[in-house]
This record gives sequence, structure tokens and C-alpha cells, in this order.
Amino acid sequence: MSQIHLLSPAGFRASGVAAGIKSSGAADVGILVADGPAAAAAMFTTNKVFAAPVKIGRRNVAGGHLRGVVVNAGNANACTGRRGERDAERMCQAGAKALRCGAGELLPASTGIIGHALPIGRVLAGIAAAARGMGRSGAHAAAFADSILTTDTRRKVAGARVDVGGGSAIVAGVCKGSGMIGPRLAIAGGKKHATMLAFLTTDAEVAPALLRRMLDEAAQDSFNAVTIDGHASTNDTLLILASGRSGVRVGAGRAAAAFAKGLDQVCQSLAKQIAADGEGATKVVRIEVRGARTPGDARLIARAIADSPLVKCAMNGNDPNWGRIVSAAGMCGAAFDPQRAELRLAGVTVFACGGPRRFDAKALSRRMDAAEVDVVLSCGLGTDKTTVWTCDLSTDYVHINADYHT
Amino acid sequence: MSQIHLLSPAGFRASGVAAGIKSSGAADVGILVADGPAAAAAMFTTNKVFAAPVKIGRRNVAGGHLRGVVVNAGNANACTGRRGERDAERMCQAGAKALRCGAGELLPASTGIIGHALPIGRVLAGIAAAARGMGRSGAHAAAFADSILTTDTRRKVAGARVDVGGGSAIVAGVCKGSGMIGPRLAIAGGKKHATMLAFLTTDAEVAPALLRRMLDEAAQDSFNAVTIDGHASTNDTLLILASGRSGVRVGAGRAAAAFAKGLDQVCQSLAKQIAADGEGATKVVRIEVRGARTPGDARLIARAIADSPLVKCAMNGNDPNWGRIVSAAGMCGAAFDPQRAELRLAGVTVFACGGPRRFDAKALSRRMDAAEVDVVLSCGLGTDKTTVWTCDLSTDYVHINADYHT
Repeated sequence: MSQIHLLSPAGFRASGVAAGIKSSGAADVGILVADGPAAAAAMFTTNKVFAAPVKIGRRNVAGGHLRGVVVNAGNANACTGRRGERDAERMCQAGAKALRCGAGELLPASTGIIGHALPIGRVLAGIAAAARGMGRSGAHAAAFADSILTTDTRRKVAGARVDVGGGSAIVAGVCKGSGMIGPRLAIAGGKKHATMLAFLTTDAEVAPALLRRMLDEAAQDSFNAVTIDGHASTNDTLLILASGRSGVRVGAGRAAAAFAKGLDQVCQSLAKQIAADGEGATKVVRIEVRGARTPGDARLIARAIADSPLVKCAMNGNDPNWGRIVSAAGMCGAAFDPQRAELRLAGVTVFACGGPRRFDAKALSRRMDAAEVDVVLSCGLGTDKTTVWTCDLSTDYVHINADYHT
Repeated sequence: MSQIHLLSPAGFRASGVAAGIKSSGAADVGILVADGPAAAAAMFTTNKVFAAPVKIGRRNVAGGHLRGVVVNAGNANACTGRRGERDAERMCQAGAKALRCGAGELLPASTGIIGHALPIGRVLAGIAAAARGMGRSGAHAAAFADSILTTDTRRKVAGARVDVGGGSAIVAGVCKGSGMIGPRLAIAGGKKHATMLAFLTTDAEVAPALLRRMLDEAAQDSFNAVTIDGHASTNDTLLILASGRSGVRVGAGRAAAAFAKGLDQVCQSLAKQIAADGEGATKVVRIEVRGARTPGDARLIARAIADSPLVKCAMNGNDPNWGRIVSAAGMCGAAFDPQRAELRLAGVTVFACGGPRRFDAKALSRRMDAAEVDVVLSCGLGTDKTTVWTCDLSTDYVHINADYHT
């Protein structure tokens, strides 16, 4: 999987450049574009305070086809009023001019601080520069992946090959996200919300309606199942572009199942990379809730555990303080009965039948000192289950977010 | 108000002793008792994982009368199975024997770590020792107030004199709470929830049904409006005992209104003291939401802001990063329209009509460097409002909760 990159699917070019939006001087403007009109599906934040590029992006993707995306990092263009909307439109216009397509064929995306006007001169100059440097190499894919990062400490990429009957297609993606991560993405302003940005490419041929349905399903157990701080952003955007250039057509039946599996794999890999690179994170915490009464209850319980600062601090300290986990499950409003529940922490049963199980606290603490810690809570009330990924809460998270400038 | 203490209302005695439950050697067992049967009303956590003393307490208070309370700190007696229930009963039995009342006339309460059996020998010896040291002085009230503390850095006390017609009565209280604070308390397993413990006394004569109703109302805008980490505990308990010894009878009309006002004042003072002494807190943050479409929406928005780690870290850093506040309001599911909203931070309007307002960021940062910071969000959608108190999120919170033992 490691050799596949965002531009491995046939029919796409990309680039990323430093336009001076980030004070660090790192890359901050990127373009990803298909060679021709591509089937497109996108999901956006459900935050009622959504950024200007989300508004423009929703409109532009509505027809089911796009040419590409123009992105900047370092400024979210959110809570910026009418000027913000004009600036998002100008990003599309500048991209369209350079790429020789329609402005309505591009999706704008932004990430960074909220409430400051875009330094539009720099952004537009960056788009022009990026358009001059487009290419199809792994280096171009990496430059794009880097241009969307903010407090992320590393590039996030994934890819999968999908074998369908006689042919094969590729699904690939990049994403960013480290803080303000608690996405509940929805296809079009539904009920489900970081700034998380994720851009996927495939060279399979998929009709827009099917692409939307498969993206929605893949997002639920990936991007919508990761939380760093439970704070859904104004800018969360997930986009997939299907070029159709592999010649493999994904319609129904086996081909759709195979493609969905590849898409799930890419989305879950990217989502886990977000959890692992959460602001200040020293570990990934995987929370599996089983035997819940309803799917909604499973999600409520998993999120309540994942978003509890007490649970996250205990994880940071390698402290098997399981009472915090069980009490988070009990407070969230979901059906929960401690008498029927069983909790396994890092593979050790610590709580069952309403009472504590004997365990070696020092040994368990050593097991928790790992890159990934599993929390498995069996509710004993039904058959529904879910998995959520989060990270620990460290003093570095506080430093990053108390010292971030305004 | 400062001279009034928990034993100022006529008809109560108390004490607090060190029984060796806390490793620090500080006071950890307390008794508060009325001279005779007192009208009693209590509210408990709505966490489905509730401690043994909560179970016994709900049963004992059901009849509307109690003699008093036996409390320990340092161990929550939660998730301790049947042994936990027996231990909570034994606390009442030991108190009853020493105080010459019925075990069912006492409410047990515990606070501390979850999932460890009570060191019942020490607890029972502590109850016997406390019962030998009962008294009516301010020092006795202070000893009781200290015996219920855990990670709290200071004693929390409040009192008010209530003038009713010809006579006057006193309402007083003590509480504890510093972490695992996100109470949604309810009279009897309702839908509303720390470990927060609060014990109130009054020498007014109030019938149990009226006392319950007034306590429920007072709790909504005080204990149920404070959050440190949004994590509702297994042990939250709020109790009021009315001795009737002042001769002032609170029935309906003016007397009830005057008493309710005094009760509100005591509950709000105690709740604010909890926010100010939140684990690692350097400041209180007062979040007022106005113009919400419904009372439920006002509470949802205020809590989403109060519980956002991003907002809390910004408060710690004196960073006027108002985008985090507005985006928290937008993500919580309540009706919210940024075009109609206005946000004032520490007295400065920073956001209105969907866009940023010009302000001096350095000057506002200096205003935020205060013991209390006000956040006032006007939604412009209706007439409902609420106020929630919280604190900032500091590296000390992480230290306290990552390094807490198990």
C-alpha cells in the first residue's frame, strides 16, 4: 500500500507551493485536478457556523462533477462575512483561469485560524504558482499533501488497489487534521461534523449518486469515528474525484463491494493517522463498544469515552483508571447497565458484573505504555457495535492550544 | 454572608476527622446531623453507573425526612458490587449506633477513586471518632467541610439569611468538587447530573415536597450549570436538611419566594466556588447565552462552549481566539445562525453579523488575564437564556489527572 500515492490513479495532477500564508514559510497552497470532468462526491461539516469555502464547495459539487480542488492552509476563511465568500470565489476563479476550466468546476477548501480575512493577494499568487508546477509524480502528490497541513507533524497518505473482475482500479487519498477534530460529516448539511480535510482520487468509473452513497458509508466508520478534542470545525471537507481512466466500471454487485472495501481501507487508514497525529498525542486509543442496544447508543458511548478529558489524561499517564471509562459510558444518555457490562483495557479484563476484577496495576500500566491502547467495552444489551479512534491528552495539547496566536 | 456557616442554622451538629483513607493524612470522614428528624430533599447523579452510597441514599431520603449524613472522602465506593452496598449500609449503621438514630435516617456519601473497595475498618472507626467529636461551632462546620474535599485546594462554604415576614431563617451549605465535574443532578433518577458533594442546612420549616421542588429549581442554575471537564460522576449528591428550629414556616407566596432566593444565592455561590477551584484552574469563565430559541438550546450552546478543550486552552493562554467559541455554538445541534449572533468576550464585541469586529487583540488579551472572564453570546433567535460557569484548561489539569494513582 505504501507505494500508492494520490496521483497513482490515472488522470490526475497536483502540486503544492509556499505562498506565505503560514508564518513558518511551509507549503500552504495546493491544487489537485483531474484531466477532464470527474465524478465527484463530497461531505462537509454539519457545524452551523461553516466557512465560506464550504458554502461555495457545496454549491459547486451539487451537480456531481468537478475538475479539482484549490486549497490553502494557515487561514480558515471562516466567520469572514461576505468578503470571505468573495475570496473563496476568487480562489476558484484564479484556479479556473490557470487550469482552463470553469470556476464552478473547482471546490475551494481552507484550514487555519477562524475569523481573519484571507491574505487574498498571497493566496491568488500561490494558486497561479501552483498551477505552473502541476505534475503526476509521487513528489507532486507529496507536495500537495504537505500544503494542506497545519499543526500536523506529518503527512497523511493512503492508497489501495481494487480488483474488479478482469480489471483493477486504484483508490488513494491524503488528509490533514490534528486539532479541532471531532468530525460529523454529512453529504449535504445533514445531522452528522474538525478542520479535517481529506481528498481522495480514484481512476474507477463510478456514477456520482453511487459515489456519494459509498463515500457516506465509508466516512461513518472512519472520519466520523475519529475525535481529538470533540470540537467539530467550520471547515471539515471530504472529497472524492473519480476519473474513470482505469476503464473499470463500478456499478452494483461485486464490483461495488470490492470498491467499497478499498474505499473503507483508505478512509480508515487516513482517519487513524489523524488520531495518531492529534495535537500533543503520545498514543492512539482505540475504543470498541460491543453489545449496545442500538447503533446510536454504541456511538454515544464510544464518543463519551473518547471525549472525556479524564479518560484521555489517564491514557497519557498510563494509568489503568478504568472507573473513568465506565462512568463515561454511564453518563452519556445511552442505555447502559454496569451489571451486564465488561471492560477490557489493553487486553486485561478490569471490570465485570458491576464490580472490579483483580489485576496487576503495574503490569497493566506497562501494557498501556504503547503506541496504541485498546479499550473494549461489552455492554451486554444488544448486538450493535462501533469503533472510535482518539488519542491521549497531554500537556503538549495545552501548550499548542493555549499558545496558538490570535 | 461570611460569618454564616453550615451550623449557623439552629438544630445541627457536625464534625470531621482523619481516618486514614486519604494517603495525605487529611480529614476524610465527616458527620452532619440534625438534633431531630429533619425535612430532607436530595438530588443525585443521573449517571447510570452510580455508586453504592447513591443507591442507599436514594432509598433513605425517599420518605422526606432524615437525621443526617455520614461521608467519606478518598474512595468513591463506586463500581464495587454487592460489597460496596454492604459497606454503604455499614456506614449508616455505624453512624446510627453512635448517634442513636435509625440507619435508614442517615444518607451515606463517598467521593474519591472508583472501583476500589472501601477500607471499611478505617471508615467505621472514623465514623465512631467523628460521632464522639460533634459540635455546633464554626470550627466543627469547617472540620466537616474539610473532610469531604479531594483534589480541592480550598474549603467551599456559603450562607444567607432569609427574612420572612416577622422572622428570619438561615440557609447555609458546604460542597466539594474540583474534577469529574459536569453534574446533571436529578431528584430521583430523572434526566438531568461530578463527584460533586453539597450539603445544605436550614432552620426554616419547609415541607419535604416543597423542599424538593425548591432544591430542584435552585440546582438547575447552580450545580447543574457548572462544568470542569464535562464528566458526570458516579457519586454526585446534593442534600438539604431543614430543622424547622427558627420557627419560620415557609409555605407558599412571599415566604417561599424569599427562601428560594436565599437558597439560589447559597447554591450559586457554592457552584462558582467549584468552578474557581477546578483542577488546575487559573480563572473562572462565565458563559452567558442569550436570545436562544429554547431553554434547551441555551443550555446546549453554553455547555458546548464550556466543555470545548480548545476554548478552555485559549482561556488559559489569554488568547482572544473567538472562532473557537462561535464554532462550538454551531456544532452542538442547537438552533444557531452566525448572521444573527453577536459575541462579547471580556466586554469587547469580537463577532457580529457573521463577521469579525475590529479589536485590539493585545488589549483584549490583557483583559482576559483576570480571575473571571465573561463570554456573552447573543443568538438573536428568541428570548431564552442561561449562564454556565467553567474554568480554563491548564497543563496542571493534565498533571493532576495523568499522575493520579490507580
